Amino acid sequence: MGELCVRSVLVTGANRGLGLGLVQHLLGLPKPPQWLFATCRDPKGQRAQELQNLASKHHNLVILPLEVANPTSIKAAAAKVGEHLGGSGLNLLINNAGIVKITLLENETLEDMTEIYTTNTVGPLLMGQAFLPLLKKAAQGSPGSGLSCSKAAIVNISSIGGSIASFSAWEMIQASSYRCSKAALNMLTKCQSLAYKEHGILCLALHPGWVQTDLGSSGGHTPPVTVDASVKGMLKVLSSISEKDTGTFLDWEGKVVPW
Amino acid sequence: MGELCVRSVLVTGANRGLGLGLVQHLLGLPKPPQWLFATCRDPKGQRAQELQNLASKHHNLVILPLEVANPTSIKAAAAKVGEHLGGSGLNLLINNAGIVKITLLENETLEDMTEIYTTNTVGPLLMGQAFLPLLKKAAQGSPGSGLSCSKAAIVNISSIGGSIASFSAWEMIQASSYRCSKAALNMLTKCQSLAYKEHGILCLALHPGWVQTDLGSSGGHTPPVTVDASVKGMLKVLSSISEKDTGTFLDWEGKVVPW
Repeated sequence: MGELCVRSVLVTGANRGLGLGLVQHLLGLPKPPQWLFATCRDPKGQRAQELQNLASKHHNLVILPLEVANPTSIKAAAAKVGEHLGGSGLNLLINNAGIVKITLLENETLEDMTEIYTTNTVGPLLMGQAFLPLLKKAAQGSPGSGLSCSKAAIVNISSIGGSIASFSAWEMIQASSYRCSKAALNMLTKCQSLAYKEHGILCLALHPGWVQTDLGSSGGHTPPVTVDASVKGMLKVLSSISEKDTGTFLDWEGKVVPW
Repeated sequence: MGELCVRSVLVTGANRGLGLGLVQHLLGLPKPPQWLFATCRDPKGQRAQELQNLASKHHNLVILPLEVANPTSIKAAAAKVGEHLGGSGLNLLINNAGIVKITLLENETLEDMTEIYTTNTVGPLLMGQAFLPLLKKAAQGSPGSGLSCSKAAIVNISSIGGSIASFSAWEMIQASSYRCSKAALNMLTKCQSLAYKEHGILCLALHPGWVQTDLGSSGGHTPPVTVDASVKGMLKVLSSISEKDTGTFLDWEGKVVPW
């Protein structure tokens, strides 16, 4: 299987965890992207220091402020990305930003349910809408038929926690607001795959494994998968998927996850 | 198969469509509920006229104001229901209230996504929390082991539109905000089934069919299933389900709907 080869990529929530890992691995590819847009809420803040260090060494890395729960912020970022790309499009949008609150079902509130849905589900919807013109342009500018991540794709970082058919780990982590938001994100991915197929855009929901990140470790657990293993696996999956995979739910090892 | 026999029931969104149909059929059962609580946003309004007419004839029918997107309104309704029931519990909570907006994916907004999720998904969560003490009391007060709707149950009126595995009718109705909210409601049902099993409460997601209601006819379509057929079918399903069905997704004919 070949390495992922893609001209331009955007990763949200890129200042830490899986997002940062994706950026590091993308920069380290044999043929790294010509443009790699890494977004986070506060690029100047202390929590984006590692991303800043990377940008000082890699001139193909562009850091942009982006709050995925804020439509105005999304539109501003899309305009900036368009300026950087000049006349060309964006090939790969990775909606990675996500939040979790570990709470018992009895303690979930309207406010938490709304906040988590807004970031985890509505954010990827709005990102897809705002970046659609650039994704379309990338698809039109890529030779050949069929769909691929090198051409144009939206990858939504979902979770096995969003699977109802493979429901697991309730005794350990309830987090119903998170589970509901990821089930809805899976549905969104299916909707996007149908709406955007005619534009040549592949859409995928991707379970990264239970990963050793701040999010994965919420609730005091030690997840089994390293960021490195997860990211390597995900990039391998992205390098191999094609038209038949659009609208599906895969894990970091390429296995189908039941809805 | 016997008719549904349940001492106390609450139906949300009961002033029209499926909610009104459920109330009418419950009142017409050979052994109607001793207490039937029918809630809607504006019980005094023009759109609740049919419900008011029914209440003037059936003294077991209690109409209460309830906005499922408002935690304060839900708590007030739960307190009122508790007063009516005196020392006994609520056997069956039917979360029927739901909204839809027929929109293309490209036109979905943060505001619509949030509004529809709040009513269709967060509402049933908050209802479950607020009525939990009354549902527990009903379970404790019912003889025998196992779970049933006669004992204590939460029934969430979901939709085939929330099924990712049986995804359909995209060309006709996109309504991604609705589909996402119902996929999330299915996940919530699974969470509720696990959290409330120890309290003796059965939880079910129920697809009523594509029904000739205002909601079902949104977008100018003519649905195939009458309110009468849907409600008869759903009440038959509710009369027959037991412990093995908690946390599942069934349709009005009792068939399992894939997630």
